[in-house]
Amino acid sequence: MRVNLPGGPRDVKAVWWEAGEVRMIDQRALPERFEILPCRSVEDVARAIESMAVRGAPAIGVTAAYGVALAGETGAEAAIGRLGRTRPTGRDLFHALDWMAARARSGGDLVEAAKAYAAAGEETCRLIGMAGEPLLPEGCRVLTHCNAGALATGDHGTATAPMRRAHELGRRLFVWVSETRPRLQGARLTAWELAQEGIDHAILADGACGVLFARKQVDLVLVGADRITASGDFANKVGTYEKAVLAREHGVPFYVAAPLSTFDLATERGEAIPIEERSEEEVTEVGGVAVANPGSRAFNPAFDVTPARLVTAFVTEKGIMRPEQVRSLRR
Amino acid sequence: MRVNLPGGPRDVKAVWWEAGEVRMIDQRALPERFEILPCRSVEDVARAIESMAVRGAPAIGVTAAYGVALAGETGAEAAIGRLGRTRPTGRDLFHALDWMAARARSGGDLVEAAKAYAAAGEETCRLIGMAGEPLLPEGCRVLTHCNAGALATGDHGTATAPMRRAHELGRRLFVWVSETRPRLQGARLTAWELAQEGIDHAILADGACGVLFARKQVDLVLVGADRITASGDFANKVGTYEKAVLAREHGVPFYVAAPLSTFDLATERGEAIPIEERSEEEVTEVGGVAVANPGSRAFNPAFDVTPARLVTAFVTEKGIMRPEQVRSLRR
Repeated sequence: MRVNLPGGPRDVKAVWWEAGEVRMIDQRALPERFEILPCRSVEDVARAIESMAVRGAPAIGVTAAYGVALAGETGAEAAIGRLGRTRPTGRDLFHALDWMAARARSGGDLVEAAKAYAAAGEETCRLIGMAGEPLLPEGCRVLTHCNAGALATGDHGTATAPMRRAHELGRRLFVWVSETRPRLQGARLTAWELAQEGIDHAILADGACGVLFARKQVDLVLVGADRITASGDFANKVGTYEKAVLAREHGVPFYVAAPLSTFDLATERGEAIPIEERSEEEVTEVGGVAVANPGSRAFNPAFDVTPARLVTAFVTEKGIMRPEQVRSLRR
Repeated sequence: MRVNLPGGPRDVKAVWWEAGEVRMIDQRALPERFEILPCRSVEDVARAIESMAVRGAPAIGVTAAYGVALAGETGAEAAIGRLGRTRPTGRDLFHALDWMAARARSGGDLVEAAKAYAAAGEETCRLIGMAGEPLLPEGCRVLTHCNAGALATGDHGTATAPMRRAHELGRRLFVWVSETRPRLQGARLTAWELAQEGIDHAILADGACGVLFARKQVDLVLVGADRITASGDFANKVGTYEKAVLAREHGVPFYVAAPLSTFDLATERGEAIPIEERSEEEVTEVGGVAVANPGSRAFNPAFDVTPARLVTAFVTEKGIMRPEQVRSLRR
């Protein structure tokens, strides 16, 4: 992804291997500060995932793969155990750990294996961009939620990949970015990424999205996913489900961009996806400052589940797929 | 409303007349600080409304009535002009100004007229509580949005009046409070009011409400309104419409509590309600601190419109009314 640094634009990944360390853009510091977080141990990597220094299902997968590489052959099993307990909802984490476990068993070079996993993920996102770009006609207005961008994947993004591709092709588009409380990944990360690329956009409160639909100011919704089941139900950042219901109510297409590594064909329906609940302070505080009534409790599910019937299509590296076609991926 | 101050609980109104001044709870300071804002001129009152030191359609009406009283008979016309340009969406402001204009024309005591307007509004809210209380069965779980409480009305509240009444009767209930970005009136004001009364509640991000519906954790939705048209469409704080769509999707009743002064029978449909847009900084900053990507634009409609077909019933001081009955109020 392009990052406009003081010395000029640079091409940066969300996470990479350098000098025997796992390094990543610290997403907690954006957009105020561009900081690199080095991780020198499996525990460093696990905590980076838990604290959301790195987040986004595919990027968590890449980070975990590098985490296993850091442990080396003898430490791989323990590393896989520890990293598998970081965040429960996203599918890619487990996909990446399975991949690394197979390489560890066959005695392969784990650093090279993790690099290959990361590179494959980047190519996958590039292909998602190619597959999804035709869905964005000239002058279209896209609504997205949370960050399914390069930061969430390694590079290109999932939901943002078709936007980047359409923009590269010179197509005019406008992106509505719902801010995505409680952690504001839309306002902080997606808006930052779009600004780096020069893609026109505006932020709005999550609750204001209904106004866009009612005024016919959204042509399509395009979001990412953390886990997609065999029936085509999917989990994504909390707030996604409301947008899917609104899109259906207003006859607006609702697209979900995700790599095949996000599909969990062993799980039949969305109800079976474990939904992480995070701390109450994410709701009652913003940037460490209390914003809610002191002493009031808060409910903070990090994800919600959208049923397959509200999905127009999935956009994958293999092309566009209707929800009822997901099951055929088993073959 | 009960406010638990250091010296013990006190009964306080949102706004009142004292020592020749309009005084109000400064709602911008809550929940961190309980502060009284004195207004000594019409301009003070207008700015208190514009800056949302006082907010909520009925409370704005009461405040404006006192503002006209402050101007006295000779200044009433100019005061009505200035106060009528503060906030466009809520109906009660214009209802209050019409009431005061009639009293000014007939040469009545404007301070007594404003006090009578305020007292009538409080009694109205008490009656809304009586009318709405039977809608809240033992053990029910209510979702509300923004603040339609005593702070928004003067006393008792509109949406909160039935909750207060049910609680007084010893009924067990639980209130889900959506935080209501951008200004967080749910997390800051409604949670504060419920805590003062000892009513069990939890705050959640606006986008997390879909999870409650999907998990069948909401028995009814109860919100206020800023303006209700003859067709039964209504404007309320942005984010209301999404909850109405979700409620319909899940077969959950959706109730709107409002005094008759909120009904605008001269306006036929919701599209004709002027929707205030407020500053981008309300979205891009929280408590004066930037939270979004610097330089990104924001869209900040303060209200949205919910169509009559999504409303189960209106709760007024005259009882419960279906949307198709609104028109009969003309008689």
